[in-house]
Amino acid sequence: MAKDKPTRLKARMPRGLADRGPAELASTRAMLETIRKVYELYGFEALETPFIEYTDALGKFLPDQDRPNEGVFSFQDDDEQWLSLRYDLTAPLARHVAENFDRLAKPFRSYRAGWVFRNEKPGPGRFRQFMQFDADTVGAPTVAADAEICMMAADTLEALGIKRGDYVIKVNNRKVLDGVLEAIGLGGEENAGRRLTVLRAIDKFDKVGMQGVSDLLGEGRWENPLNESGDFTKGAGLPQSSINRILDLFGMRDEEESDDLEPGAWPPDQNRAPPTDEARVTERVLRRLQNVAGDTATGSAGVEELKEIWSLVHAAGYEDRIRIDPSVVRGLEYYTGPVFEAELTFEVKDEKGRPVRFGSVGGGGRYDGLVGRFRSEPVPATGFSIGVSRLASALSYLKSAEVASDYGPVVVVVMDRDQTAHYMGLVATLRKAGIRAEMYLGNPKNLGNQFKYADRRNSPCVVIQGSDERAAGQVQIKDLIEGAKAAAAITDNAEWRESRPAQFACAEAELVAKVRELLDHHRVPHGAALG
Amino acid sequence: MAKDKPTRLKARMPRGLADRGPAELASTRAMLETIRKVYELYGFEALETPFIEYTDALGKFLPDQDRPNEGVFSFQDDDEQWLSLRYDLTAPLARHVAENFDRLAKPFRSYRAGWVFRNEKPGPGRFRQFMQFDADTVGAPTVAADAEICMMAADTLEALGIKRGDYVIKVNNRKVLDGVLEAIGLGGEENAGRRLTVLRAIDKFDKVGMQGVSDLLGEGRWENPLNESGDFTKGAGLPQSSINRILDLFGMRDEEESDDLEPGAWPPDQNRAPPTDEARVTERVLRRLQNVAGDTATGSAGVEELKEIWSLVHAAGYEDRIRIDPSVVRGLEYYTGPVFEAELTFEVKDEKGRPVRFGSVGGGGRYDGLVGRFRSEPVPATGFSIGVSRLASALSYLKSAEVASDYGPVVVVVMDRDQTAHYMGLVATLRKAGIRAEMYLGNPKNLGNQFKYADRRNSPCVVIQGSDERAAGQVQIKDLIEGAKAAAAITDNAEWRESRPAQFACAEAELVAKVRELLDHHRVPHGAALG
Repeated sequence: MAKDKPTRLKARMPRGLADRGPAELASTRAMLETIRKVYELYGFEALETPFIEYTDALGKFLPDQDRPNEGVFSFQDDDEQWLSLRYDLTAPLARHVAENFDRLAKPFRSYRAGWVFRNEKPGPGRFRQFMQFDADTVGAPTVAADAEICMMAADTLEALGIKRGDYVIKVNNRKVLDGVLEAIGLGGEENAGRRLTVLRAIDKFDKVGMQGVSDLLGEGRWENPLNESGDFTKGAGLPQSSINRILDLFGMRDEEESDDLEPGAWPPDQNRAPPTDEARVTERVLRRLQNVAGDTATGSAGVEELKEIWSLVHAAGYEDRIRIDPSVVRGLEYYTGPVFEAELTFEVKDEKGRPVRFGSVGGGGRYDGLVGRFRSEPVPATGFSIGVSRLASALSYLKSAEVASDYGPVVVVVMDRDQTAHYMGLVATLRKAGIRAEMYLGNPKNLGNQFKYADRRNSPCVVIQGSDERAAGQVQIKDLIEGAKAAAAITDNAEWRESRPAQFACAEAELVAKVRELLDHHRVPHGAALG
Repeated sequence: MAKDKPTRLKARMPRGLADRGPAELASTRAMLETIRKVYELYGFEALETPFIEYTDALGKFLPDQDRPNEGVFSFQDDDEQWLSLRYDLTAPLARHVAENFDRLAKPFRSYRAGWVFRNEKPGPGRFRQFMQFDADTVGAPTVAADAEICMMAADTLEALGIKRGDYVIKVNNRKVLDGVLEAIGLGGEENAGRRLTVLRAIDKFDKVGMQGVSDLLGEGRWENPLNESGDFTKGAGLPQSSINRILDLFGMRDEEESDDLEPGAWPPDQNRAPPTDEARVTERVLRRLQNVAGDTATGSAGVEELKEIWSLVHAAGYEDRIRIDPSVVRGLEYYTGPVFEAELTFEVKDEKGRPVRFGSVGGGGRYDGLVGRFRSEPVPATGFSIGVSRLASALSYLKSAEVASDYGPVVVVVMDRDQTAHYMGLVATLRKAGIRAEMYLGNPKNLGNQFKYADRRNSPCVVIQGSDERAAGQVQIKDLIEGAKAAAAITDNAEWRESRPAQFACAEAELVAKVRELLDHHRVPHGAALG
C-alpha cells in the first residue's frame, strides 16, 4: 500500500474529537455500571437506538443556531432523504415510543447510554462527540415522575461517591417563565423566536451574571462589557419594564424579602416543625414566583407544579439536595414544564492550583410535545440526562488518590528465537491460570528493548528462559515492581546478568504458583483459572 | 410544539438500523465483558477512537464499491474537509498509532469495541450500523503474533460457551494468492483493480461454490446460473489456464491427493506421533500450496509463514481448532499476509425448522501497509475483529434454554391520589434495600390498568395500600408470579377484592422483609442495600 501511494498522509483527528486510553475507559466503565444499577433500581429498563435518524424525526431543538446545519451532522441517503447523527438521546426516544406506541407498557420507563454528536465549534472541554446517560418516563402526566427523576439524580451522584452537600439538583418550571412572557406580550406563535432568545439569555446567567442577562434581554451584550469590545450579541430588544419583570423571577432586585410564613400558608404538611433552612428559602422563592408569574393561568400552573414537586421532595427527605431555582431554564427548545439541572458545588484545584467548579453535570425536564409531534394525542414525558464525560472528569478529581495503578501483563521475553513455540506455551500456561501474560512480539534481538517494553506496559514481572535455564527445566522470574528503578538502566545482556535485582529461579512447573505469589505479594489483582 | 406544527410527522427509522431492548442489551453486555476478559488476559489494553475521522485517514478499503461514497457515510466539515463515519476499527487504529507513534510502547497491543457504519444496501441480517470487537498487535513482524491472535479467537469463542468442534478458525495467507497472481501476469500496480476482482471472486466461495468462483474469474456470473437470469456480475476476464491455476489452490480439481509424508518432511517436530487427522490434512494443504504458488518468491514466503503459524498452533495444542484453508481471503483490500476467519460450524433450526449455519462471526489478518501510509518506515500489524451482533445472535440460539426470564420492578399501586408522597416513600424503602421498585406513574384512576402495567413489566409483585390498610399500618402484597394468570382477568376494584390470588397483608415496617422473602422464594435476583 505504501509503495502504491508515495504521497504520505498526515495522521490527524478532526477537531473536537478524542481518543481514550485504558485508565479513562476503565473508570468510565465502572461509572456507567453504577449509574445503570441505580436506574434499574428505579425500575427503568435498557434501550438503545441507532446513531443515525431521519433529520425530520430528530427535529431542530438545539441551542446553538449560529452554525450551518444548526449544530447537527447531516448527510443525504441514496434516496435523497436527509439523515442526521443524533444530537441527544431524547429525540430518538420520542421516535422510538411513537413508532412502537401500542406495543409498549406505559408509562414507558427506559434508560439509554450512548454517544451523541454536535456539529458545534469545539473548545476546551467542549467536544463534538460526547456520552450521555439518560432515563425517561414517557406517558406519565404527574409531576411525581419529575420529582422521582430528581431524587434518582441525587441518588446516582451519591452512588458515584459524591458526598451530600457537594452537589445540588436545581428545579424550575418553564411554565413560570412562559406565564411572565405571556404577561409582557410575548405569547403566541408569532413570538416563538423572541421567547427562545429570552430563554437563552437566562440560560447564560451562570456565565454572564444578572447584568449580562439584563443586557441580553435588552439591546444586547459585548463579549467584554467593560470596554465594549469582542463579539456583540444582539439582545431580545425588550423594554425595561419587561426586563425588570423577568429579572424579578430571580429576586435579585429585592433588597430584602420577608421571611414570615403566613398562617395556613403552604406547605400543607406542618408536622415537620421547625422548617429547615432549605424549606424557608424554598418557600420564599415559591412565593416570589407566585407574585411575579401568578397572574396568568400558565404561570400559576407552573408554580403549583413546583409546589407539588417540593412537597414530594420534602416528604421523601431530599430537601437538602433538591432546590427550586428560577435561573434554571435549559437550552433545549423542547421542554414544556419542570426543568432540572444537577450541579456539582465543590471546588477542586486545576493544574495551576486555581479553584475550579465543575458546575452542571446533567439536566433534563418535561417535554410533553416531543412524542406528540408524531401522534394525534399528546404524550406527556420527562427525563434526565447525565453528561458522562464531564461527570467522569469531576470524579477523577475526587478519586484520584483512590485509583490503584493498573498493572500490565506478565511478559515472557524471547531469549532464543527458535524457542518461540515453547515461550508461547509458558504464556498459555499463565493465561489458563487467569494471569494476564504475553510473549514479547517485537524484534527480540535487543534484550534491553524487551525489558523496556515490559516497563512501559507496567508489567509486574518478566519471565526469562535461556538455554541454561531450559536445560535445567527452570525459568527466571524478575520482579519489576521491586526492581523498577534498576531495570531502566540495563541495556545489554551482560550488564543485566550482573545486576539481577529482585530476580529468582524456579522450576518451570512452578511458574504459575511463583508468579501468583509475586502478584499477591504486591497486591496485583489477577483472575481465576479459565473454565 | 404539537400546536406549532399541525402536519404530523411519521415515526420511522432509516433502513438497515435497529432499536435494541433490555434482553438483547443484557446478553450483549455479558458477552462483551467475556470477550474483554479474554483479550485482557492476552495482554491487550483498552482503546477507543472517535466515530468520525478524516475521510482520507480512513482510506478506501471496503469490498462494496457498487454504491456512491464506496460504502462509507461521509459529510463535509465547516472548513470543507471531508469527514466519514468509521467503517471498521482497524483504519482508525492505524491513524491512532501513527499519530502517537513515539509515545506508545511497541508492539502496541490494544482492543477496541464499538459501532461501525457501512453505507451499504441493507438486507435481512445486514445492518448499516453494527458492532465489532477488535484486538490488534501493531509493530510485531513475526507471524507468532498472527498465531497468537488465532488462538485468542479460539479461546474467546470457548469462553463464550461455544464448544470445541462447533467452531473453526481458518487461516490463509494473501501472499500465496499474490504469488499465483504474479505467476499468471497479474502483478504490478497496473493490475491492482483486476487483483481485487479476483480476491472478491474467491471471497464468494462460500456463497457461489467452486463453479461460481470459476465464472467470476472468467467472463462473469448470472445471479441464477441455471436459467441465466437475475443480475449479471462481470468477471475478471482471465483465460482458462489462469483460472485453473487459481482453482488449484483449493485443490478441487485433483481427484486424489497423495497422503504420504516424505521422510524428513515438514513439520520438523516429529515427537508428536502419530500425526493427527488435522495434521495430515494440513500438511497435504500446505504441500499443495507449495506446488501451486511456490515458484514465486512471494508465494513461497506465504507458504513458509503458514508453516510457521501451523507449527506454533500445533505446539500449543490448537491443531483441532485452527485450520489452514486457502478459500479464506477476506474482502478488505488492506490485508498483506496471513488472513483469518472464525466460523461457527454447528447447525441450528430457524423459526421454520430449517437448518441454518451461522458461518463467519469474525476475521482479520495482517495489514503491514496501513500504518505505513502515514509514516516513512513500514509498520507491521495484525488484528482480529469479532462481529458482535452476528455472534450474539448465534449465542442466543445456543443459550436460549439457559436464559432466566428477567423480572421487572416491584410496582406500588396508587389507591389514593393524595397519598403519592407516602407511596413514593414505600418505593424509596424498597430501593434502599436494593429491590427494584417504582410507583405507578400513569393515570391511577383505573386500578386494572395499574395491574396490567405490572404484568407487562413482568413485575414479581405489587404493593397495595388503601385507606383501610393505611389505618391499620399495613400493606397488601400481591404475588404476580404465583397469580399471573388470574390477574389478567381482573378489571375493577370489586372483582379484584374478591379474588386476591396469592395475596397477603403485612405490617408496613415488614415490607422489605416480606418482599425479599417473596423474591427469594421465586428465585428472583435482587441487590444488596445501597451504601
